[in-house]
Amino acid sequence: MNIITISREFGSGGREVGKRLADVLGYAYYDREIETEIAKRMHMDVGYVAKAMEQGMTRNIPLHFGRTLASYPMLKQQVDILVEKQRMLKEVAAASDCVIVGRAADVILEEYKPFKVFVYADMAYKLKRCQGYAEMGENLTPREMEKAIKKIDAGRSQYHAMFLDIEWGRKEFYHLCVNTSGMEIKKIVPHIADYARDWFEGSRR
Amino acid sequence: MNIITISREFGSGGREVGKRLADVLGYAYYDREIETEIAKRMHMDVGYVAKAMEQGMTRNIPLHFGRTLASYPMLKQQVDILVEKQRMLKEVAAASDCVIVGRAADVILEEYKPFKVFVYADMAYKLKRCQGYAEMGENLTPREMEKAIKKIDAGRSQYHAMFLDIEWGRKEFYHLCVNTSGMEIKKIVPHIADYARDWFEGSRR
Repeated sequence: MNIITISREFGSGGREVGKRLADVLGYAYYDREIETEIAKRMHMDVGYVAKAMEQGMTRNIPLHFGRTLASYPMLKQQVDILVEKQRMLKEVAAASDCVIVGRAADVILEEYKPFKVFVYADMAYKLKRCQGYAEMGENLTPREMEKAIKKIDAGRSQYHAMFLDIEWGRKEFYHLCVNTSGMEIKKIVPHIADYARDWFEGSRR
Repeated sequence: MNIITISREFGSGGREVGKRLADVLGYAYYDREIETEIAKRMHMDVGYVAKAMEQGMTRNIPLHFGRTLASYPMLKQQVDILVEKQRMLKEVAAASDCVIVGRAADVILEEYKPFKVFVYADMAYKLKRCQGYAEMGENLTPREMEKAIKKIDAGRSQYHAMFLDIEWGRKEFYHLCVNTSGMEIKKIVPHIADYARDWFEGSRR
């Protein structure tokens, strides 16, 4: 299977890159679908699952989680969610070509040799994009919004650190790092898709 | 003018990326041509000029050069070379669309709004590529070669630090970071060229 993982700074348009890449390539697309499915399987509230996956766990545990689940004082429920998530990601990766946004899929699915993309942008561009996000709260000042963006990314970085010793966002861990500042994402995605196709071809030689 | 700068880890194939990009786009290409021309203009040996530009100056001065030439104990000749280099890069950038590999052109030409690419790769891939480089010395063991590669990159990093406070190779400073590990450069360059075309179009909107 061809697996593409998209890691992204909040507000950089990484989700749009992922969605459009999946459309262009005809791949399945996974983003919040992962939490929704886990919540369904575990009979839990999807909001709780999402929180546990994105930040909840890192509040109570040290920065470096390493790869041993047992040695940290996490709630059993959080461990269960994490285990279920890893199982789900592997199911998904085995089922069909797909694009997965976030969820530390870049690390969790490493054995599947995914094409790993990191999407980032200047703060000015991210602020501009975020003005359109209702979920960010509509009455934030730019300064408050910048703070919120940084907080979300710090959460992602900490979450990532549970699985990997390399700092989140270091280019060495990715195959392609795309700075979307000022770009029209719709236009650049076909080029990323072409690049990915050649990458998959090359990785099988 | 459309200016593309290629910064690259030694052995990653950045030079080949630059050369092929220039071919595909029909742009002028500059790499060692810069030193050759400076040497000609200054009636100096090209080897000396190259050494001074790539590493010579950093041997005697602290890591952060900032932007004031006057405050560091450089040889007058080295300062002259640096000044001539900056003049030449700007001449070149004003003359025609071009691709420039290395030479800290990404920083020196920032006012020309270049499309900035960083090319990197895993050490295993770089070692493999370097086996073909006669100039690396043909009898180096892999361990010696790895040491040599790291030394060259450390020189580039230090040279870059004279002009810019951001660490060399930080993705934030570039528009696209390309990991060439295992890739056939000939195949991926057309996609980078397409990406660059859209970037130039977008940057003028």
